Amino acid sequence: MRVVFLGTSGSMPTPRRGSSSVVVRLGRDLMMFDCGEGTQRQMVHTKVGFRRNMKIFLTHLHGDHVLGLPGLLQSMSLLRRERRLDVYGPSGTVEYVKAFSEALGGPTFPVIIHEIQEPGVVYTDDRLDVVAVRSSHRVESWSYGLLEKPRPGRFHPEKARALGVSEGRLWHTLQHGEAVTVDGITVEPMQVSDPPRPGRRIVYSGDTRPYPEMIELARGADLLIHEATFSHELQDRAEEDGHTTAREAAEVAREAGVKRLALVHISSRYFDPDVLLEEARQVFEDVFVAEDMMEIELPQPR
Amino acid sequence: MRVVFLGTSGSMPTPRRGSSSVVVRLGRDLMMFDCGEGTQRQMVHTKVGFRRNMKIFLTHLHGDHVLGLPGLLQSMSLLRRERRLDVYGPSGTVEYVKAFSEALGGPTFPVIIHEIQEPGVVYTDDRLDVVAVRSSHRVESWSYGLLEKPRPGRFHPEKARALGVSEGRLWHTLQHGEAVTVDGITVEPMQVSDPPRPGRRIVYSGDTRPYPEMIELARGADLLIHEATFSHELQDRAEEDGHTTAREAAEVAREAGVKRLALVHISSRYFDPDVLLEEARQVFEDVFVAEDMMEIELPQPR
Repeated sequence: MRVVFLGTSGSMPTPRRGSSSVVVRLGRDLMMFDCGEGTQRQMVHTKVGFRRNMKIFLTHLHGDHVLGLPGLLQSMSLLRRERRLDVYGPSGTVEYVKAFSEALGGPTFPVIIHEIQEPGVVYTDDRLDVVAVRSSHRVESWSYGLLEKPRPGRFHPEKARALGVSEGRLWHTLQHGEAVTVDGITVEPMQVSDPPRPGRRIVYSGDTRPYPEMIELARGADLLIHEATFSHELQDRAEEDGHTTAREAAEVAREAGVKRLALVHISSRYFDPDVLLEEARQVFEDVFVAEDMMEIELPQPR
Repeated sequence: MRVVFLGTSGSMPTPRRGSSSVVVRLGRDLMMFDCGEGTQRQMVHTKVGFRRNMKIFLTHLHGDHVLGLPGLLQSMSLLRRERRLDVYGPSGTVEYVKAFSEALGGPTFPVIIHEIQEPGVVYTDDRLDVVAVRSSHRVESWSYGLLEKPRPGRFHPEKARALGVSEGRLWHTLQHGEAVTVDGITVEPMQVSDPPRPGRRIVYSGDTRPYPEMIELARGADLLIHEATFSHELQDRAEEDGHTTAREAAEVAREAGVKRLALVHISSRYFDPDVLLEEARQVFEDVFVAEDMMEIELPQPR
């Protein structure tokens, strides 16, 4: 599981920071959170590429979070994509995609848009859930949690053999968390395996004021990617504009007990973001300011 | 008069090349030709900035030429622009701007859109004309010529004095190309000045097959900025897609007798564009492949 920061700027891009986008790579799958202007170019640059199995989650319909979508869909069309692409976002996402498709020509492959109706699981497969929680910005906006499902604990062949379960199909069943029966005796997975290992969790705030449900969503997360548009000196401005200060982001991380905090959506006024880093570090130790093209590996817990 | 190449890629951006846009700086004025995705960031990068007196000319409504417009208008709004912005483009430009404005929120200043109805002068002021000519692409598309007006020739004070015209308001009138009368005798500007100096001319092709009217538009131009998406080896592809090869662009430059040729809209397949450069140079000597952020000064002719 690898996190690639494609764009870490605030509302306006700078030479150093492009508009908002972050992707999580998990095997051949790609989960994208926001798609600001220039995202497709950053994807080329970081060699993330236009993977076939990709899903896009938009936090809200402000230009700096969604204006990369038309160009990305256009390039996928030029590359003759046929596979469907699923896009999740707030109400208005259908209208937005329809608007630019009608004006400029739409994608040549199916784009399925899911407008989020209520908080909860918006996407699920056999490895992970994506959960949306309503955040607190000037327009309808959502935070997302990517929650890997627990994986079965380590399997111990010697224990299985001792209980009379021979190698093969039965082991496979046990390894996938189901009981087997041998000579009328039921063997449970927990008899031959360590306890399930918790899945990894990444939470992405989008643009928002700090809000209570975020603490729950981010509880114990491996990585919290939180906006920190302003420093504490601009607290009033943050409240007016529906943004978070670096100090507040760190408070969220501390309260939620996350393992690591990445600050994004950095206002163009902070040419040197150290002021934000220092401010956050006074509250929460394991914090960094994400930079464009930065990549973070989240290893599987042992 | 300074030309800044903001984006020189073909349909898809690469790490080295962003989507199409080129600007001409003339004093405090800025004339932009096309506005592909990422243009605003390139403007920040090159310190072109979001100048107040700016006009935008769009060649056609393909995403790689216009998808930077929404973000640029958004950033101008964030910077509290109040002055109107004029945008020129093909039919459909009004609908395009309306579409993204309705979906994402529109600019907070007046944007006046001029859909080009027929070839000819589409913009004029006291220093220059911008002429549009219908080009030959898959959709309605236009090439543009930026034609500086002739400037009065060098004024010779000693000749004016010899004809009895004293320094002051009368000199000013003569220098601006109008006759004056002194003691009943009319003095014409040509009696006290060198002949008018021709204005500089820059021509921008947009996406197009070579077409006859371009030769006329570019006749004697100081700089022809012509697309050269493909090399001659992909001649068939160029014809199918409505594009020009490097060799063909050079032929246009030669026939039109331009002073200099810049190749743009370089397909992502040419990581090393030397193949295009060499191919063009066999036909036309003074050619270069434009790179993103490249700046060219066009000095006033003596």
